Amino acid sequence: MYHRIKLNSSCKTEFIDITASIKQLLSASGVTDGLACIFVPHTTAAVTINENADPDVTADIDRFLTVNIDNQCKYHHSEGNSPAHIKASLLGSSEMVMIDGGELLLGTWQGIYFCEFDGPRQRTYFVKFIQEN
Amino acid sequence: MYHRIKLNSSCKTEFIDITASIKQLLSASGVTDGLACIFVPHTTAAVTINENADPDVTADIDRFLTVNIDNQCKYHHSEGNSPAHIKASLLGSSEMVMIDGGELLLGTWQGIYFCEFDGPRQRTYFVKFIQEN
Amino acid sequence: MYHRIKLNSSCKTEFIDITASIKQLLSASGVTDGLACIFVPHTTAAVTINENADPDVTADIDRFLTVNIDNQCKYHHSEGNSPAHIKASLLGSSEMVMIDGGELLLGTWQGIYFCEFDGPRQRTYFVKFIQEN
Repeated sequence: MYHRIKLNSSCKTEFIDITASIKQLLSASGVTDGLACIFVPHTTAAVTINENADPDVTADIDRFLTVNIDNQCKYHHSEGNSPAHIKASLLGSSEMVMIDGGELLLGTWQGIYFCEFDGPRQRTYFVKFIQEN
Repeated sequence: MYHRIKLNSSCKTEFIDITASIKQLLSASGVTDGLACIFVPHTTAAVTINENADPDVTADIDRFLTVNIDNQCKYHHSEGNSPAHIKASLLGSSEMVMIDGGELLLGTWQGIYFCEFDGPRQRTYFVKFIQEN
Repeated sequence: MYHRIKLNSSCKTEFIDITASIKQLLSASGVTDGLACIFVPHTTAAVTINENADPDVTADIDRFLTVNIDNQCKYHHSEGNSPAHIKASLLGSSEMVMIDGGELLLGTWQGIYFCEFDGPRQRTYFVKFIQEN
């Protein structure tokens, strides 16, 4: 069993906090101890965990990636979105988070972000909770 | 139980699509729902998920990494392959993919790639499927 | 059940080998086959797997990140540690390693590193072992 969640990005690049949605799914799942897997089934989007307090943090990550990747090379891929593919591989398609006592074991300042690199688009991410024995 | 798969890279850097091999192993395993873990036990190779349609995409990722890492710093490691180690840590040693109804839950355009950064060599990757209860 | 391990970093940036501690925890856990998850609950630290033989390798990874991130952009986050947040997202918050016959399935030259990017500080990492059926 897994969950397919839809979201809409509204910009070319955007970090969307999906922590609250994942916590709600976990709460409803009845899983108490184990692992959560968050997976992004796109090749120009990713998932990352970073600071949830000051939005300048994810904006700075986005800015760094854009400045260093968008015009850094002569890319050959004819769709013209190679920078988005590169960012997706650098940040990664999945994150694993532990579950204990029915709670996601995130640090105080950690949030889980869907990273859009080639928007705006309708996107999907998958969530699965594995109960340990 | 896990699978050890050997492969031979043929270039210095190369992205080798291992999706079909992993799907065959999954099919034979009888695992219907759970998680697949793909792990690369090398320090100058990695695994990533990205576009499986136009080979220019992985070629552009490779080109970006080479242009930005190979001669970017004065490296100290005496074997001279620090760029390959850096690329390995940036793309990562493992990927997790969900399994549902006996199928790998990849997006339409996603393939799983063994990333060679210091070839050509004989290499190995590990695959494990975890059945959920 | 999971383990919370404390450590103290002693520099601004530092790669600390935590492989031996994780092996000890695994040994004491009685888990024989499955997956190990290592998770860093901080937003300016990360975990990576790379060479455990020559310390110049992790020093070169650290040097590359510093040279390319620390002064690459005009960052807006007022705490001034955006480079540490960017490095954390690039290397990632978690690693998954297989367990077989009571052993961590690492390659010969692989070690697991806690990556400090904004030290020195007291830090924590989490370890969980999942036994497969």
